[in-house]
Amino acid sequence: MNKSMISYMLGWLLNTIAALMIFPFLVSLYYKESCGKYFLICSLIYIAVGVFFTRKRPKNERFFAKEGYVMTAFSWLLLSLVGCLPFFISGSIPSFTNALFECISGFTTTGASILDNVEKLPKCMNFWRCFIQWIGGMGVLVFMLALIPLTGGQDLYIMKAESPGPNVGKLAPKVKQTAMYLYVIYFALTLLEIISLVLFKMPVYDAICTSFTTTSTGGFGVMATSLAGYSPALQYVVSVFLFLSGLNYNFFFFIWIKRFKEALSMEEIKAYVIIFWVAVIFITGNIMGKGYNGEEAFRHAFLQVGSIITTAGFASNDFDLWPSFSKGILVLLMFIGGCAGSTCGGIKVSRIIIYLKTVKKELAQLCHPRNVKIIQIDEKSISHNVLRSANNFFIVYIMLFALSVLMISLDNYDLETNFTAVASALGNIGPGLSLVGPTRNFDLYSDFSKFILMFDMLAGRLELFPLLVIMAPSTWRKK
Amino acid sequence: MNKSMISYMLGWLLNTIAALMIFPFLVSLYYKESCGKYFLICSLIYIAVGVFFTRKRPKNERFFAKEGYVMTAFSWLLLSLVGCLPFFISGSIPSFTNALFECISGFTTTGASILDNVEKLPKCMNFWRCFIQWIGGMGVLVFMLALIPLTGGQDLYIMKAESPGPNVGKLAPKVKQTAMYLYVIYFALTLLEIISLVLFKMPVYDAICTSFTTTSTGGFGVMATSLAGYSPALQYVVSVFLFLSGLNYNFFFFIWIKRFKEALSMEEIKAYVIIFWVAVIFITGNIMGKGYNGEEAFRHAFLQVGSIITTAGFASNDFDLWPSFSKGILVLLMFIGGCAGSTCGGIKVSRIIIYLKTVKKELAQLCHPRNVKIIQIDEKSISHNVLRSANNFFIVYIMLFALSVLMISLDNYDLETNFTAVASALGNIGPGLSLVGPTRNFDLYSDFSKFILMFDMLAGRLELFPLLVIMAPSTWRKK
Repeated sequence: MNKSMISYMLGWLLNTIAALMIFPFLVSLYYKESCGKYFLICSLIYIAVGVFFTRKRPKNERFFAKEGYVMTAFSWLLLSLVGCLPFFISGSIPSFTNALFECISGFTTTGASILDNVEKLPKCMNFWRCFIQWIGGMGVLVFMLALIPLTGGQDLYIMKAESPGPNVGKLAPKVKQTAMYLYVIYFALTLLEIISLVLFKMPVYDAICTSFTTTSTGGFGVMATSLAGYSPALQYVVSVFLFLSGLNYNFFFFIWIKRFKEALSMEEIKAYVIIFWVAVIFITGNIMGKGYNGEEAFRHAFLQVGSIITTAGFASNDFDLWPSFSKGILVLLMFIGGCAGSTCGGIKVSRIIIYLKTVKKELAQLCHPRNVKIIQIDEKSISHNVLRSANNFFIVYIMLFALSVLMISLDNYDLETNFTAVASALGNIGPGLSLVGPTRNFDLYSDFSKFILMFDMLAGRLELFPLLVIMAPSTWRKK
Repeated sequence: MNKSMISYMLGWLLNTIAALMIFPFLVSLYYKESCGKYFLICSLIYIAVGVFFTRKRPKNERFFAKEGYVMTAFSWLLLSLVGCLPFFISGSIPSFTNALFECISGFTTTGASILDNVEKLPKCMNFWRCFIQWIGGMGVLVFMLALIPLTGGQDLYIMKAESPGPNVGKLAPKVKQTAMYLYVIYFALTLLEIISLVLFKMPVYDAICTSFTTTSTGGFGVMATSLAGYSPALQYVVSVFLFLSGLNYNFFFFIWIKRFKEALSMEEIKAYVIIFWVAVIFITGNIMGKGYNGEEAFRHAFLQVGSIITTAGFASNDFDLWPSFSKGILVLLMFIGGCAGSTCGGIKVSRIIIYLKTVKKELAQLCHPRNVKIIQIDEKSISHNVLRSANNFFIVYIMLFALSVLMISLDNYDLETNFTAVASALGNIGPGLSLVGPTRNFDLYSDFSKFILMFDMLAGRLELFPLLVIMAPSTWRKK
């Protein structure tokens, strides 16, 4: 284990966070909020510690898969701790557990809250809440990779550990450049949404925050009622950007470099579009006439499907009151999630495609044991390693899910609440159903359950394995 | 596809069922119930058709994996149809859908009922209900294999398709002999339970029926209150036999041939015992003092854990009223199920062991990509085919589960009801929670949902693939 390299990188992480905390401080200056000073204080402390650890480059920069996972896991734990301090020391969120929960929910782009009324928060604090979602969406380490010069191709291991999806889609031969491209697309989408929202008359502050949490598919809002208080036009704008944010970023990259045919023939994109619109149609049909006219039914279905499949977690409506079939679709979408290579959580569409193809292959193989078939996506065959890893991902996902539900059920809430709370945390969604439905929050749970849910949010964001790697005794055993 | 061989085997199946229907007819004679005549009528019709199809052996007895799956699937569909007719034509269960549901629930050893009061049924009908669980428990085709002379080793494919578990444990070199051994153990367990129950003063009729449904882990009862109406001593007897029925039959075989060391060192047995008793201890602790004294808490926990992990589905108590944690444990056990090579449903303990070992291997491999480890159970390495198949089993299990929950949610009952109804059907358990809890029944669902649940029961009993094979277009495509 290359410990000096890990502490060097963690130092850079502190520097990065220190720099990013200037933004909420500026917001506090604009709104003349005194609590903004805590961002400045934290920033100064972090940079002092960060500079100490980054004062000289380690002699040995070699970095392997194990270090990639360990570093990613530690980075996110560190992020969560340093990110939550302004909430806690300013007294905006008086309980430390709650401040940590809110911060992890932010960075992991979950969007589950322990606040009953977010409008009571100072503007700078709420800005920070939404901003950390934006930072966490594309990945902090990916951000650092785009900025810090690292030698060799070892940085791929970090990208692999932090990026969602069964396979890292490198857009460019170098990781640094891939990271840059990703951030450019991300930035462009965010900017485009801010402009669109302002054009449709959303206040600028709201537009910035909402865009941060749409493109990161985080789902924190600036209003206590999430998106229900905005006009239908604004709800449509957000829905469209949610739909876009669920797409694999390779798609945007292909569009960018004008390889339209390749963009449109991506199997994952096709599957995502089909799942998305089939869900919208079914829910529209199911809720229409039940308190909604045609347009309302479509609008809420569009926004809610977009919000759940991309694992953002906005609400335009109390979907906990919808018929069981519509709720069933939403719960299913919680597990599916968006495309790999997007900012979404969940299992990811590309893995679902892999699973369906392996099952089809299994059926053929049962009948004709000697025929060997190869699984392909986009006409490229999927390696045995990726298949094995995708299968194990599914098994761990469901097992972690089941164990978490069991543990939080010690609080004695009903199955629907516990089930959807964990589905929501593990899929980085936000709201669940019943007692954690869109009009409620997660404060009802005990501290023990909150820590379980925090673990799930981090595990979901990092796609399970980094957190498990640091918990496995074999990682720390000396040879 | 060797169609003549399939119709020949299905003919034998009809003959077998015709013979077995003599037993409920005898029961009706003893209790002087006129409705027993329907068993005689059905029996005569079945044997007429059966003899026609079995009048001469097919020239080509060759039989491959595909035929094994197709035959098994068709046999169980045929079984369901012919088995339910006495319920329907006698008017004991007036709706055909309900009669079919009850029969499939019987043969698959699920034990979910659509009857609100089973005590209203004539004795011979209730005997048939319990008897088909006993027949279905060990497998009808396995039964036939023990009796009908088949040439070659091709009968292994049938055994593979019908027997639960990732791997068929052959007890003897020949399938026919393995089938015989299994039935001898099964018969001995059943007889031992009947004697024990009678010794503890259960009426003989009740003792026979209850033993049928304990050793088959079916869970149909003769009383409307399941086991709640019997004395504590009787409840303990049933619990002990439930515990035994969840064990891999290889264990009993090793005991039989006095290879005690091998019996006790089986990894699956150890894991099953640990899961079983940890669950009992947790539930006892969780419910003690909440309306139960220590002995009661232990007794109900023991019986309920035994009943759910072996997927029998008896109830000594309305566990729907227990705290969420205890209910959570029971729901988890619904998915785990008993040992492979037992009469239990669910995913099976041996698969869970495989999953845990593959995940452990995955973690090691993530950190050291070049190390290749082999997964072993009982010091034998697990072949790649078995691993792949076990992984696919899990994926299909969860997908079928999710789709079924979604489809039956069209009836608009709550998530807890739908979730546990499907978990119960797919795991061949019986009761669920909430509206399908142990004091309720499945009659609330629409016919559409009942058919979904029937499919799930059959899919669960046959471990998914036979039913999927007959639905896959590739099976029927000519080369």
